Amino acid sequence: MSFIELLSNVRVKKPVVHFITNYVTVNDCANVALALGGSPIMADEVGEVEQIASQSSALVINIGTVNERTLNSMIRAGHHANQLGIPVVLDPVGADASVYRGDAVKLLLREVDFSIIKGNISEISFLSDGIVSSHGVDASMDRLASEDKINEIFLFSQRLSLMTGSVIAITGPIDIVADSHSGYAIRNGLPMMQQVTGTGCMCAAAAGCFAGGNHDCLLNAAAAAIAAVGLCGELAYEKLQNLQAGLGVYHELIIDAAGDLNDDLFGNRIKMTRIC
Amino acid sequence: MSFIELLSNVRVKKPVVHFITNYVTVNDCANVALALGGSPIMADEVGEVEQIASQSSALVINIGTVNERTLNSMIRAGHHANQLGIPVVLDPVGADASVYRGDAVKLLLREVDFSIIKGNISEISFLSDGIVSSHGVDASMDRLASEDKINEIFLFSQRLSLMTGSVIAITGPIDIVADSHSGYAIRNGLPMMQQVTGTGCMCAAAAGCFAGGNHDCLLNAAAAAIAAVGLCGELAYEKLQNLQAGLGVYHELIIDAAGDLNDDLFGNRIKMTRIC
Amino acid sequence: MSFIELLSNVRVKKPVVHFITNYVTVNDCANVALALGGSPIMADEVGEVEQIASQSSALVINIGTVNERTLNSMIRAGHHANQLGIPVVLDPVGADASVYRGDAVKLLLREVDFSIIKGNISEISFLSDGIVSSHGVDASMDRLASEDKINEIFLFSQRLSLMTGSVIAITGPIDIVADSHSGYAIRNGLPMMQQVTGTGCMCAAAAGCFAGGNHDCLLNAAAAAIAAVGLCGELAYEKLQNLQAGLGVYHELIIDAAGDLNDDLFGNRIKMTRIC
Repeated sequence: MSFIELLSNVRVKKPVVHFITNYVTVNDCANVALALGGSPIMADEVGEVEQIASQSSALVINIGTVNERTLNSMIRAGHHANQLGIPVVLDPVGADASVYRGDAVKLLLREVDFSIIKGNISEISFLSDGIVSSHGVDASMDRLASEDKINEIFLFSQRLSLMTGSVIAITGPIDIVADSHSGYAIRNGLPMMQQVTGTGCMCAAAAGCFAGGNHDCLLNAAAAAIAAVGLCGELAYEKLQNLQAGLGVYHELIIDAAGDLNDDLFGNRIKMTRIC
Repeated sequence: MSFIELLSNVRVKKPVVHFITNYVTVNDCANVALALGGSPIMADEVGEVEQIASQSSALVINIGTVNERTLNSMIRAGHHANQLGIPVVLDPVGADASVYRGDAVKLLLREVDFSIIKGNISEISFLSDGIVSSHGVDASMDRLASEDKINEIFLFSQRLSLMTGSVIAITGPIDIVADSHSGYAIRNGLPMMQQVTGTGCMCAAAAGCFAGGNHDCLLNAAAAAIAAVGLCGELAYEKLQNLQAGLGVYHELIIDAAGDLNDDLFGNRIKMTRIC
Repeated sequence: MSFIELLSNVRVKKPVVHFITNYVTVNDCANVALALGGSPIMADEVGEVEQIASQSSALVINIGTVNERTLNSMIRAGHHANQLGIPVVLDPVGADASVYRGDAVKLLLREVDFSIIKGNISEISFLSDGIVSSHGVDASMDRLASEDKINEIFLFSQRLSLMTGSVIAITGPIDIVADSHSGYAIRNGLPMMQQVTGTGCMCAAAAGCFAGGNHDCLLNAAAAAIAAVGLCGELAYEKLQNLQAGLGVYHELIIDAAGDLNDDLFGNRIKMTRIC
């Protein structure tokens, strides 16, 4: 399926996406999902997460500001989504920032089968410890994907995908998205996006929308999502310069761009190369 | 009292409005309340909600992202507001989305007397089950108010109002606001507003401000609030086109418009007709 | 150290700032911290707050929407930051709004040594009760700092600083920032900022960034933070008029300005006078 078709499926099917996510960027996740064509629902009470998940086309679990209550809800919702074959996206925000978050992620990985795991190289390499053990990304490795690191990061992603069964999406200057068979390098996005909170969370939100609208095509759905948010950052930057605006307005222009994405932009501006 | 006077009362009295609301759109609720002239305070700890409610001119209960802890706080705050005669607004977000939320809403309806209940047709018709029983909106009914459905939805709202004692505000392409005696059909607003999260919550926030500033005029306060937010969506859209902006900026322009509302705009642009 | 150097230290060191804060304005706190050059991390689970605090250059505790769970986390994080000599900023949002919040603040003041306490005159004078007792700001006192009140508020701040060991920052039309030795009066900012939720919280967020980047210079760091946010409000207002925009866009333009602050603006537009 072409990437244009993947976007079109989101716009047409308007997949309901269930989010259990942090309270910092939750509004951005909802708005970017709506702008892409999804139908977000945020619900974290353990008494309802199974039912909400069961009525959704995808579940997004984001551990920023996770706590004991919401971790329990994440597991319950994840179990239920797994039983029903609904794709589950994991955004392991700050998995490497505390033992608590690290343990939470490990518990989630044991309990839930994730369709897509999206994180930066620090978060993803943390996850790999104990899974691909000595094959993990070396701690001394440059933590950002650059042209000469693409292959190394791709092979690492592929191994992690083989062990977890998940599509692995590693964000950075060059994003790598891989399953156990093949993958993509994506060159959309701008460094300025890191100065706005939530652009990483938006990638996971977009992955939920694309996966929700394209259940049978998860590698490409994940790649399309990462590329889409990167492209939104570029389109927003172009508008920003006309408006002589800064980071606050840039934040909103990224959402603008998500709503403005169309076949033409998605067909011509996505910078994605197949790795193998 | 004219609708201009209702707005003027909000601007002059600056009513304190207590919100127990979801974490997705809470920032929008606060900002739209401030822009309309209200003074929002968000507080959900059970140890303080009674006191905060008692010092407020209105209480807004919004069940998006409700959990056991905050449901308890809602009941306590609602009880206390009832005892003191402070108007309470209910926004039953997603009442029909899970058994848990449905039960939460039913519990709230048993425990608290609401002055205004604001929801879309799905949420409100869910509420009516077991209250107006077979008289409820038929499941096969077109769920959006259109010109030929106005009377049917008005009669349904009126019956629900009679049973609950609340002003009922049903949002849609045409909004219906009714108490047991009379009502309004409102034709402000744009479909694009549904692509921004929180525009529904803003209606309840506005209802809190208008009710807080106009205790003796709750039907008109609710109607003014719904019309005001719809008008803000229209004014924002006009500005949007000049700026060639999209959904992210539209979100902020709705808040802009709430701050810019004045007697002239409110007097001339409100599209409201009395039903009976 | 000059104020320009204080800003430069934030930009260069990119201090990690740990926030335990309310869910209303948390996104603004994160974005203003990023825009100033800080690196915010929001975490409130008791199982991780000590570790997160220990890896941060500053901790910001903001009691808006505090509850029993997060209050416990605040105390644990504060203890740990104190042990490690990491500066802790307190924003006692609405300390005077309920007995619960008042007690929470008193508990925090007993348990944690704060480097900087930032609030409006109502919040800070509430804190002083029982600390500076009869020397507290008189209840009949005009609650806003005006030219003829500067000295009175400065002396009050100084006494409170002597008792708590904290830098005291009292925001208002004229902001007063003082330790037990000296202080500043700051005349940046605009009344319109009060119509946007979170501008007060942004001051505490900025204080976390400036303190995190300048551990040995906390009085000046607090003053620089308050002046910076006030200046951002002014710069945003200038842009606002060109765009013919309102409160919603103003909100984003304040973040824009935080990203645009530079030596020139910070050197020439800060309106700060040393009191003694």
